[in-house]
Amino acid sequence: MSATLHTGRSALRPVHRAGRPAIAVTVGEPAGIGPEISLRAAWARRHEVNCVLLGDAAFLAMTASTIDPDIKVAALSLQALRNGGLPRFGPERLCVIDIPLAAHVVPGQLDKENGRSVLATLDAAIEGVQAGWFEAVVTAPLQKSTINDAGVPFSGHTEYFADRTGTAQVVMLLAGQPLAPAGKPVPPPLRVALATTHLALKDVAAALTRDGLGRTLDIIDHDLKTKFGIAAPRILLCGLNPHAGEGGYLGREDIDVIAPAIAAAQARGIAASGPYPADTLFQPKYLRDADCVLAMYHDQGLPVLKYATFGEGVNITLGLPLIRTSVDHGTALDLAAQGPGLGLADCGSMEAAIATAVAMADAVAASSSSSQ
Amino acid sequence: MSATLHTGRSALRPVHRAGRPAIAVTVGEPAGIGPEISLRAAWARRHEVNCVLLGDAAFLAMTASTIDPDIKVAALSLQALRNGGLPRFGPERLCVIDIPLAAHVVPGQLDKENGRSVLATLDAAIEGVQAGWFEAVVTAPLQKSTINDAGVPFSGHTEYFADRTGTAQVVMLLAGQPLAPAGKPVPPPLRVALATTHLALKDVAAALTRDGLGRTLDIIDHDLKTKFGIAAPRILLCGLNPHAGEGGYLGREDIDVIAPAIAAAQARGIAASGPYPADTLFQPKYLRDADCVLAMYHDQGLPVLKYATFGEGVNITLGLPLIRTSVDHGTALDLAAQGPGLGLADCGSMEAAIATAVAMADAVAASSSSSQ
Repeated sequence: MSATLHTGRSALRPVHRAGRPAIAVTVGEPAGIGPEISLRAAWARRHEVNCVLLGDAAFLAMTASTIDPDIKVAALSLQALRNGGLPRFGPERLCVIDIPLAAHVVPGQLDKENGRSVLATLDAAIEGVQAGWFEAVVTAPLQKSTINDAGVPFSGHTEYFADRTGTAQVVMLLAGQPLAPAGKPVPPPLRVALATTHLALKDVAAALTRDGLGRTLDIIDHDLKTKFGIAAPRILLCGLNPHAGEGGYLGREDIDVIAPAIAAAQARGIAASGPYPADTLFQPKYLRDADCVLAMYHDQGLPVLKYATFGEGVNITLGLPLIRTSVDHGTALDLAAQGPGLGLADCGSMEAAIATAVAMADAVAASSSSSQ
Repeated sequence: MSATLHTGRSALRPVHRAGRPAIAVTVGEPAGIGPEISLRAAWARRHEVNCVLLGDAAFLAMTASTIDPDIKVAALSLQALRNGGLPRFGPERLCVIDIPLAAHVVPGQLDKENGRSVLATLDAAIEGVQAGWFEAVVTAPLQKSTINDAGVPFSGHTEYFADRTGTAQVVMLLAGQPLAPAGKPVPPPLRVALATTHLALKDVAAALTRDGLGRTLDIIDHDLKTKFGIAAPRILLCGLNPHAGEGGYLGREDIDVIAPAIAAAQARGIAASGPYPADTLFQPKYLRDADCVLAMYHDQGLPVLKYATFGEGVNITLGLPLIRTSVDHGTALDLAAQGPGLGLADCGSMEAAIATAVAMADAVAASSSSSQ
């Protein structure tokens, strides 16, 4: 499959839409809630967006009929798209590109036999966005262990997309719309990027470098402009230490690493500022002046984001030559084991991930048409 | 002054109230916003609580008249209280215990000459609560550097209260009432305690020990019972590492330190649980089952608390033999420099600190009367 991927080539280019935008949705781990939430969210949004599901067509058709007999699916082969592109569909049916599973699915039970099929959906999504079939990719949660157990070293969606597109560095951004407390104004969207991600806390301080932060700021600035349509993104950086180090009294990294990285970015024309104490910065009155907050580590940034967005946060990978969004939760095998018909799984984050992908595709299209 | 302090003696004892509860309010750094917000908040709450202000009486009388000519103050000497206890006052006037400043106050400008007077207000508050004049102490923000510059080593309110009452370990708890988003149920109060406080991030992992966490859990459990009236407090612990270490893959402390501390606390009858990933735990659906969250470090716990409570969080010191609450902000010298008459300083956190102190005093009184 990898021979068909155009490594490093940007798929961010002028879009000539006929009707609804087409988005690839990889359904993720088949024994998890991914197939259910993909079907529910795609169906709920079908009048605005043509979500093309990538997964086993027979399994998805059966799952769809269990969820809601009104949901209709239409299967296509990957080869058919390679031959003739994505055919036009109306919103009466969900289009499924058939990527067959190897083994029968028992909801809630992982089976390494299906690991390679899950990976094949990701390859097809990248191929499709580079071929112009799709404007963006939305990924449902997968189980890393299933793929590793199938004999393919795999550390996550994000790293896989980076590797397959020849991208040296990516940045994880979580975004969502906070709910307004009664009587308060509606807050702006909250966007939190991470300078480090899945790293033991004791290793965080040493992992921060001026150059690394500089590249992270470059990626955030570039992608907020090109994929979000923000002309001059304002990026507020958290300090690493409590109270941003209190003048060096509680740690030197804020002075020695973060402040110089900000100064250098400002000299390149980036509207970065800080470092600010994280417990001050994450107050609505300061967030009003931010297009993005750059947190230094996972648990400095994500608790607020997830608290504020009530489980409807969207995970966005910045730095890729394509648009990729995802849910902010896992496969929920325990819920999946109870079957898709009970409606136990909440597809709110999946709907938000689809809506965000469409908004980003719109921003790219607008930017392309205005620059022509 | 210290000769009069009854070190280590608990002031949490049966209260026989006549009228409004009496609370000591230390007005903090005189050049900051402390005097203004103390006066405003005490006046706003005067029908429910007898806030006795501890500070320079002439300076406070002048400040009061600048804020609002309706605010009346009545000055008393500390010696008068020592001789006859706290006299009964109605809500027509705010009672001030005169602790004279050494130098004229220029708002916004620190003066080390006044450092010892600020300390004397803290000593008088402790003396007063131990003598039974006050049921609790509320502290406005002070400036540590002013006291240090005056020649007295001082690392903060919390440490000073611990030292002066012979308390070996205290726990910092931030609490507040999150606002309910439109259409959502009102959330329970959010309480976040910290296992470590003002420590460089790189030193946090090594500072966590099983025994230290055990003592922290004992203090939280004890104080939530005795000072908050919660019969069996449910304490949820955050993990140290992202995803609580993901089974040891992202750090071992969650397995080697936190989990054993929780197991030992459970064996002592404490309803502690975890460690949970911080970005999962701080979602409303999980917080509903918590009386308190114990975060492992400053920026894991406080950003959510301050976000959720819109700057009206209250800082509570657990483990002391008295009730002490405080605002969750600093002296705001820049605002203070513009004078108290413009109403620039927000006294929301101060009002919340007073209300919390009264609620805690009520819980102690109820517990005392039910056990008699």
